[in-house]
Parts: sequence; C-alpha cells; structure tokens
Amino acid sequence: MPRTTSHGAKTRQAILAAAADLASIDGLDGLSIGRLAAELSMSKSGLFAHFGSKQDLQLATIEEARQRYVEEVIEPALAAGPGIRRLHALCESFLSYLERGVFPGGCFFASAMAEFDAKAAGPVRDRIAQCQAQWMDTLERATADAQAAGELHTSTDRQQFAFELEAALLSANWYYHLYHDPAYFERARRAVRDRLASQATRPGLRSLAPG
Amino acid sequence: MPRTTSHGAKTRQAILAAAADLASIDGLDGLSIGRLAAELSMSKSGLFAHFGSKQDLQLATIEEARQRYVEEVIEPALAAGPGIRRLHALCESFLSYLERGVFPGGCFFASAMAEFDAKAAGPVRDRIAQCQAQWMDTLERATADAQAAGELHTSTDRQQFAFELEAALLSANWYYHLYHDPAYFERARRAVRDRLASQATRPGLRSLAPG
Repeated sequence: MPRTTSHGAKTRQAILAAAADLASIDGLDGLSIGRLAAELSMSKSGLFAHFGSKQDLQLATIEEARQRYVEEVIEPALAAGPGIRRLHALCESFLSYLERGVFPGGCFFASAMAEFDAKAAGPVRDRIAQCQAQWMDTLERATADAQAAGELHTSTDRQQFAFELEAALLSANWYYHLYHDPAYFERARRAVRDRLASQATRPGLRSLAPG
Repeated sequence: MPRTTSHGAKTRQAILAAAADLASIDGLDGLSIGRLAAELSMSKSGLFAHFGSKQDLQLATIEEARQRYVEEVIEPALAAGPGIRRLHALCESFLSYLERGVFPGGCFFASAMAEFDAKAAGPVRDRIAQCQAQWMDTLERATADAQAAGELHTSTDRQQFAFELEAALLSANWYYHLYHDPAYFERARRAVRDRLASQATRPGLRSLAPG
C-alpha cells in the first residue's frame, strides 16, 4: 500500500474519532465540516477531500461510533460465556462504557436516537434506527440463549424483557449526565439484577450469584 | 388592562406555543428567532420586541412547555385520588400525553434533557435539570403517599422505584418516536403495572385492579 494511502487512512480515522466525540455532545447535526476542521486544525478543503458532504461525514461517523460500541460493549460481554451471564454482562458492559466515558457526551447512539427520532426519514435517521434495532436484537437473542440454556423461564416475553433492561440502561445515561451523579449507575445495576432474578430459573440464579 | 397589552400577551402566547412545538422536534438550540419568525409569518423585529435574546426565548419556551405538562400530565393524575392509584395515574397520564402527541416531537422535557445533558452549565440547562427533578420528586412523593396509605410496602426504596417507573416511560418516548410503533406504549404500561404490583400490599393490589 503506498504511503500516501496509509497516511490518508490514518487522517480519516483521526477525523472520525474526533467527529464521534463531538457528535456525542453537540449532535450529528452540529457536526459541520467547518467546525470539525477548526477542532482538528485542518483546512476545510483538506476535510472535504475525505468527506464530500455533511451527510457522508455523518454516516461515516456513525460507522466509527458503531465500531467503538462493538469493541467497548459487545465484545467484552461476548467473552463472558453463554446463558444468563452473557445477558448480565451486556448490561454491565454498557454501564461500564458510560462510566468510562467512552464518548464524552454519553452514549453516542442514545444521543443520536434523541436527536433524530422526531426528524423526517433519511439515510442518517435510518442508519441510527438500524443500529438501535441491532442492539435490541442482541439483548433479545441473549435472552433466548439464556432460555435455551434453562437459565431464564421459557415464559419470559423476550421483547418485553429486552425493553425493560434497555429502559434502565438508557435512563442511567440521561440522568447520570444531567446530574453528574454516579448513583444512577447503581440504580440501573439494581434494576437489571432485579429483572434478571425475577425471570431466572434456579440454575439461572446460581449462574448470576457473584463469585 | 389596555387592549394593546392583551393583544401583546396573546401574541406572546402564540409565539411560545409554536416555539415549544418546534423545540420538541429540532431542539431548543434549533430555536432561532429568525426561524420562528418565518414559522409564524412575523417580522424578526416583531419577535425581538417580545424576547430580547435567544436565551430569553428558550427560558420562556421551557415555562410554556412546563405549563402544558402540568395541564396534560400532572393535573389529570392528581384527580385520580390518593395512594397507589395516583402513582399509576401519573404514569398512565404521561403515556397518554405521548400517545395524544401533546408535543409533535414527543416529550418536550425528554428532548430537552437529551439535548442539554452533556452541555456546559447555564440558565437553560439548569432550568431543564430543575424541571426533571420536579417530575422525579412528583413520582417519589406519590410513592411515599402510597406507602403512607398502606398500599405499597414501606420497604420500597422510593428513589429506586421512581427511577424504574421513569425508565419505562422515558424509553417508550424514544422508541415510539424512532419506530412509530405504538407497541412501545404497551411495553411501558406492562412494565409500570408489573413494578407497581411487585411492591403493592394486598390493599394496594385491590386498588390497582381495574373496575
């Protein structure tokens, strides 16, 4: 690969990392090429060479954020092993990602959902809706796996269960950032544990027990 | 009162109603005096006569939204009578306010919280944080009243309980608007009923029963 391409790829990567951080605070619509150029001490024309339009930049920023989400939330949880532990690990992993400030403005996708949920359809809104659907699907599949492993009751309504877990996680994101109070992480942890315990079988409760 | 003042008050009211609707979709920062003037077919200078600055307009818009929230969510629920019924009515009333589209972009305060939670402190952010705290306090006080009435167990942690109810309500707001799927209202209703039933005493369960 010629050196220029490699350098170009690194620059593109640096732009997108800064764009994802910025968008988590000011929104994807606040992401102007001019503003990002100033943030990165680059020329606007230099930035335009990487992203032809604001929409291209927004879509590429979502992919950057998705990659970071996969690395910081999904992959560590998948390492936790199957069953109810994986479902618990997905929730814990999300809360840890908030606590560690992986994005300075809180969860990138929560911010993006809030920004675009009432807006007209379009490629950016569609992609955000797809990403959220993938996350809910991840929670629902982990619930199904825990049911198949005999650790959650088969009567548990998977969509309802995923919604209730997500509700606790999402609300911890908003309230923590509004009041800068880490007590909201503990509230979400307790809500998640209570929901899991309420639907767990005896083997499931043993798997959930610490240590 | 001279006619001009009354006319002025009506104009101000019309401006604020439009501003609150617009802000629920595009955010309080998207609320420029120029844009609002275009929306209302008014001159920018005419609008400036009512609101000296963007921040004044934003703060007045929050008060307008708060008044609407009190009328559409709080007051109907207070009419439900005391105890666990009032707590249930507050949650139902919030979901009904979403269903009826009281604000076209969903809950004004959820949008405002999402927009300002990661932003620097200032009068607008502070006012939004106060409004959210009042709502959480309303849920916590209704929980305390239901405990005092012997309808919820006295061991129930009021802050945790209010957080879990709010989590279901807030998530219904985001997911309903993202997917235009009213099933999210039913998920929130079910989560609320399950939480209430899980902490209710026998008299509380009787009060909760329909009919």
